[in-house]
Amino acid sequence: MAQADIEKQAPTSPWQVTKISSEGVVNSPDVLAREEPLEIRLNGQSIAVTMRTPGQDEELAAGFLWTERLIEKPESLISIGHCPGKTEEERDNIVLAYVDGVSEALDVGWQRNFTATSSCGICGKASIAAVRQAAEPIQSDIRVAADVLHGLPKTLREAQETFDRTGALHAAGLFDREGELILLREDVGRHNAVDKVVGAALFRKMLPLENSLVLVSGRAGFEIVQKCLLAGVPIVAAVGAPSSLAVELAAESGMTLIGFLRDSSMNVYTGAERIKS
Amino acid sequence: MAQADIEKQAPTSPWQVTKISSEGVVNSPDVLAREEPLEIRLNGQSIAVTMRTPGQDEELAAGFLWTERLIEKPESLISIGHCPGKTEEERDNIVLAYVDGVSEALDVGWQRNFTATSSCGICGKASIAAVRQAAEPIQSDIRVAADVLHGLPKTLREAQETFDRTGALHAAGLFDREGELILLREDVGRHNAVDKVVGAALFRKMLPLENSLVLVSGRAGFEIVQKCLLAGVPIVAAVGAPSSLAVELAAESGMTLIGFLRDSSMNVYTGAERIKS
Repeated sequence: MAQADIEKQAPTSPWQVTKISSEGVVNSPDVLAREEPLEIRLNGQSIAVTMRTPGQDEELAAGFLWTERLIEKPESLISIGHCPGKTEEERDNIVLAYVDGVSEALDVGWQRNFTATSSCGICGKASIAAVRQAAEPIQSDIRVAADVLHGLPKTLREAQETFDRTGALHAAGLFDREGELILLREDVGRHNAVDKVVGAALFRKMLPLENSLVLVSGRAGFEIVQKCLLAGVPIVAAVGAPSSLAVELAAESGMTLIGFLRDSSMNVYTGAERIKS
Repeated sequence: MAQADIEKQAPTSPWQVTKISSEGVVNSPDVLAREEPLEIRLNGQSIAVTMRTPGQDEELAAGFLWTERLIEKPESLISIGHCPGKTEEERDNIVLAYVDGVSEALDVGWQRNFTATSSCGICGKASIAAVRQAAEPIQSDIRVAADVLHGLPKTLREAQETFDRTGALHAAGLFDREGELILLREDVGRHNAVDKVVGAALFRKMLPLENSLVLVSGRAGFEIVQKCLLAGVPIVAAVGAPSSLAVELAAESGMTLIGFLRDSSMNVYTGAERIKS
C-alpha cells in the first residue's frame, strides 16, 4: 500500500494571544491558520476569488473548475499554475488555468465574474434554476463494511493532528474501500478541502472516483454533495449533519450519504445497500 | 429585560434514516435542517443566490445588502419582501429589495451577477483588491467582564437546543454587555446566521451595534469579521478558531476578537483592553 498523500504541515501565521482562564491572564505566542484570497483566471479571464488556506492552489483551482464543469474531460486542462506576476501578491494569490473547449460552458448557464469564498461551493449561478447542476448519476457497485466506515473518523483525526496545529481547518479525506487513506486535504473553507481532493485526483488521473469514499470533517451541505457527485464519488460521509438539499441530491443521484459518522454509530440517509454489516 | 428574540423552531424536512450502530440496524424517522436557494433581487436585478435555511428571508436579504454596503443608511431601504410570483418556488425563494441610491455602489467595485452560497460571505468581488472592503473602524468604549463572556456559549447552546433538532445549524447570537441574549438566528450557512442578525438589527433600528457582542457557534473567518465590522459590532467571539485574515482585519479595525470561547477559558486575539477581569 502506497503511503497516503498528506501535506506535512499547514501554513500558519504567528500571533500573540491573550489567554484568559480561571488560572489568570497569560500572553503567549500562538499560530493561526492562514486564510488568503485566491483569484482563479480561466483562459485569461478572472472568474472567481475564493478565501483559502494557501498550499495546494493548483489542486484547488483544478478541482473547482472540474466541479463547476468548466473542464469537460481531464485532457481538456492544458496548463495550470501560479501567475508569473510582478508583485508577490500576484504570484502567490493568482492561478492561471488554460482549458480547451470551455467557451461554451462559460457562455451557457455559468456566470462570469462571480466569486466564491472560503465556504462557498456553488457560487456563480445567477438564478435558482441553475443551482441544481445536471450530473451523471453514480454508477458504482462498491460495497463497504460498516466496520470500515466506523474507523474512518479516527484515521482522519489522527492524520489531521499531525497537520493542523490551529484547530481552524476543515478536512476532506479520500479513502479506498478497505478504509485506507489515499489523500487528505485541509482548508479554512470546507468546500475548498473537497476541491483540493478532486483536483489532486484529477492530476493523478483518478477521476471518476468510482471506487472511493470521501469523508468530510464537518457537515455536509448541498455543495459538498454536488462536488463529490461531479467527481463520481459513490459514498460520501460526514462527521456532522447533512442538510435537506444535500440528502435530496444524493438520493436523486444514487449516492450513499452518511452523517454523524462515529466510531460506533452512523446515520445513513441514502444508499444503505452499499454498506455491509 | 425584554425576552430575547428567538425563532421557536427551525424548518425541517422529514427523512427516513438507517441508523447503524453496535446495537444493530434500525430504520427510524428523522428530521433534516432545510436548505433551499434564495435569490436576492435588488431594484429588479438578480444579484445573489445563497443557500439558506428558510424562515427569516427578509432579514437575511437586508443583512446581506447591508454588509455588502449596498444599503447606505437604514432609511435607504424602501421595501423588502418575498416576490409575488406565480409559482410556489418564486414566492418562497425570491426576495425583492428596493433601495435608494444604490446604482453607484453597484457600478463601482461591486460586481453584479455574483452569487453567494450557504457559507459564503464575500462573494462578488472579481478582484483580490476588492476583498478587503473599506469600513469605518470600531468606535466603542464598551467594556465587558470576562465572566460575562465565559457565560455566553452556555446561553447560546441552551437557546439553540430549543431550536435546532437537527444538529445542522450554525448560530449567531447578539448579546448586550451584561450577557443577555438579544437576538438568536440560525442557518445552515454560518455567514447567513450573521446576516440575519444584522438584518434583524436593521429592521429594529439598532445599527450600528456599538454596545453589543456577537457570538458565533463555529469558527470565525474573514467574512464573519467583515460582516460584524460593517454592523459596528465591537466584540466578536467564536466557539471555534479564527483565521489569520479574520484576526488581521479585527486588529486593523479596532475590534475585539475572541476565539475558543469556553465556560472557563478563551483566547483573545485583538482588543483585550475591552475585557475586564
